[in-house]
Amino acid sequence: MSLSMYTASVPVFRQILGSLSAILEKAESHADLKKIEPDALLKARLFPDMFPLLRQVQVAADFAKGTVARLGGVEVPRYEDTEADFAGLQARIAKTLAFIDSVPREAIEDGATREITVGSGDKQRQFNGGQTYLMHYSLPHFYFHATTAYDILRHNGVEIGKKDFVGSF
Amino acid sequence: MSLSMYTASVPVFRQILGSLSAILEKAESHADLKKIEPDALLKARLFPDMFPLLRQVQVAADFAKGTVARLGGVEVPRYEDTEADFAGLQARIAKTLAFIDSVPREAIEDGATREITVGSGDKQRQFNGGQTYLMHYSLPHFYFHATTAYDILRHNGVEIGKKDFVGSF
Repeated sequence: MSLSMYTASVPVFRQILGSLSAILEKAESHADLKKIEPDALLKARLFPDMFPLLRQVQVAADFAKGTVARLGGVEVPRYEDTEADFAGLQARIAKTLAFIDSVPREAIEDGATREITVGSGDKQRQFNGGQTYLMHYSLPHFYFHATTAYDILRHNGVEIGKKDFVGSF
Repeated sequence: MSLSMYTASVPVFRQILGSLSAILEKAESHADLKKIEPDALLKARLFPDMFPLLRQVQVAADFAKGTVARLGGVEVPRYEDTEADFAGLQARIAKTLAFIDSVPREAIEDGATREITVGSGDKQRQFNGGQTYLMHYSLPHFYFHATTAYDILRHNGVEIGKKDFVGSF
């Protein structure tokens, strides 16, 4: 039995994006309870030249969207980065989850042998097949942003734990 | 073409543990250059009840070690957590890399159909096959600690970027 490209991608993104959604809900409740301005969390960063929480969530969701689209050989949908509050981020995650569930499973399996290109110009990078792309490029980037979103909230006192991050599967 | 359990695990751990090693080297040089006490970084945390940098690295390495051992059906080697400096963490990573490279590839492939148990007592969890264990349990935990190690250093002003985290593959 081998791993399938589908089971190694869509359900994993669903798990962690689901966790992010639940974590953001806890963050919003925390802000509410402690009378914290939502922007104090949404715009929080771990260092001045790092992305704030809001952008970390957008980028994590975009790695899920882009990966599943490229594996499936369909166009990457373009979402404007207009979110400005917790409700906006929840909608972004929900839209992303609906998209990744819409790509046919067989097309994603075929991604194993697809030539995949990311970026453009100097930053263009080509992958000879979806496996290297998923395991060595997409997932590290995805987890990087998802964990940093968690770390920003944790650093700001929101009561969450690793269980919230790993979520359920 | 399907993903193999081996290619989805060992080379991924090697990539990110290699990144962690390079990041820790940069952190050590930074401490040296700025006359920062190494412990100021090694014992830094993002919140009082989170693990400090040193422990995040130990735990990330342990997830790599434990995952490859369990997939390969060999005993998980036990490493004492005695590291107290950057050199110790580098040795821990090197030891972990040597171990994961020592488990036979075929045994790891067979992990796909192996029954895997983690934890004990109330916290015991069973996986019916290595795929769910690797993709939904091991990698989320591994990336969680590896990214948090990065975030602690970034938060403390060490000049590293996402490229250092994703590393080379």
